[in-house]
Amino acid sequence: MIIGYYQYHPEFGATGRNLEKVEDTLVGVDADIIVLPELAFTGYFFQDREELRELAEDVSESPIVQSLSRLCKNNAFYMVAGFAERFKERLYNSAIVIGPSGLLYRYRKLHLFHTEKEYFDPGDTPLGTIEIRGARVGVMICFDWAFPEVARSLALQGADLLCHPSNLVLTYCQKTMRTRSLENSVYSVTANRTGKDARPRGELLFTGQSQIVGPKGEVVASSDSDEEAVVLRAVDLSGARNKAITENNDLFADRRPEFYDAIVKTS
Amino acid sequence: MIIGYYQYHPEFGATGRNLEKVEDTLVGVDADIIVLPELAFTGYFFQDREELRELAEDVSESPIVQSLSRLCKNNAFYMVAGFAERFKERLYNSAIVIGPSGLLYRYRKLHLFHTEKEYFDPGDTPLGTIEIRGARVGVMICFDWAFPEVARSLALQGADLLCHPSNLVLTYCQKTMRTRSLENSVYSVTANRTGKDARPRGELLFTGQSQIVGPKGEVVASSDSDEEAVVLRAVDLSGARNKAITENNDLFADRRPEFYDAIVKTS
Repeated sequence: MIIGYYQYHPEFGATGRNLEKVEDTLVGVDADIIVLPELAFTGYFFQDREELRELAEDVSESPIVQSLSRLCKNNAFYMVAGFAERFKERLYNSAIVIGPSGLLYRYRKLHLFHTEKEYFDPGDTPLGTIEIRGARVGVMICFDWAFPEVARSLALQGADLLCHPSNLVLTYCQKTMRTRSLENSVYSVTANRTGKDARPRGELLFTGQSQIVGPKGEVVASSDSDEEAVVLRAVDLSGARNKAITENNDLFADRRPEFYDAIVKTS
Repeated sequence: MIIGYYQYHPEFGATGRNLEKVEDTLVGVDADIIVLPELAFTGYFFQDREELRELAEDVSESPIVQSLSRLCKNNAFYMVAGFAERFKERLYNSAIVIGPSGLLYRYRKLHLFHTEKEYFDPGDTPLGTIEIRGARVGVMICFDWAFPEVARSLALQGADLLCHPSNLVLTYCQKTMRTRSLENSVYSVTANRTGKDARPRGELLFTGQSQIVGPKGEVVASSDSDEEAVVLRAVDLSGARNKAITENNDLFADRRPEFYDAIVKTS
């Protein structure tokens, strides 16, 4: 199975141009699953909820979803892309999974970062997985990396591969995602964006350094902080299905969930 | 508060000599909490349950506990030490917390590594914390590092500091413990041993590299793979009490435990 990412600079507010750039770049690419950054078409640093609402789309009538579906069909691959989602009066920082038959899955970011809380609604979709060409795939978005529960919940539900669209401004995440892969024995693809969002309210510089990580926490491939690149690797997902780390230890069978209650306490 | 570790080579089976070495080295040391390695007095690589039973002690009548209590009283510090525990017919890979007033706390390792399963019983004590001189302290042992639920459960119960007696043969753990400190915004002290256990059944080489890590995942102090050393640092535990990472984000308040059920499923 060939997995990877497209690291690039989405221009703020230029949804059409960003979509065109993704289509032009990915046409003819030989891959199974390609991950794009968080908010891959709108840009990231919104002024307010009004501005976001103008740029967000309802998946059921989204030109982006329609275009990506055609792209996936014509090139026989699947994509995981960050997506500004409008649903009735709500606005979500979502990721969509699209394949040759169209939209397959949608995840709404559970853990919003900083100013996202001003204009996005918190995610309300469960942490789940989907199957793509025999691989079980989990989706998490950017700041979800900071919460070990996210990758863990996806892996416990069978994820072989964590697809992780991101818009990172710091670089803590990359090292932590190596731990996420190691502790869960799964592949992960963090697709970060590059470039700046220079807006009236301020400027954010995104840090690239997208990476593909293997189930031992090893970096299989990675990019610089500012290059635009499609990076793909052939991987053997059976490595993610073997949770054994010694002849007597299995990362999942050895868990003692009856001692982990503090993690789900909601008080 | 002054925290740290004593990294050394416990000689297999030489409980008396190991205890004497610890006493000789730590007498007069100015510290609040000193962490020793896992199985700090017996050594690690037992042949079988019979051999372990011979060397293990019941905390209620343990010469080691009595000696360490005197050491703590005479030097006004607290210790966290790995301890082969016998309790009725059961044998645990435990860690004991001892202070000037004697034994304060005992934790029995929940996640046993490799051959430990042949001779130790799995831990049956909950993940809890204790207060020492105003600091809330959580205890975990060696391979517990691989399970994010352990550090998380301790931190959610208020731990400012994770004390982590270890007997590591690989070096994955150190990087992961930086993630554990970062994701929970807590200090951690990993006290690893050095030297070999060369036994009839085989030889294990322990990898040292003990470390003190701060709440941003930063290495505050660390040791080489084979040096014997007492390493102490003055730290400000208030850094572990501030879980804010932006003006809008708090690592704990931002959690969404209602979405983490997969983690405590026992089926």
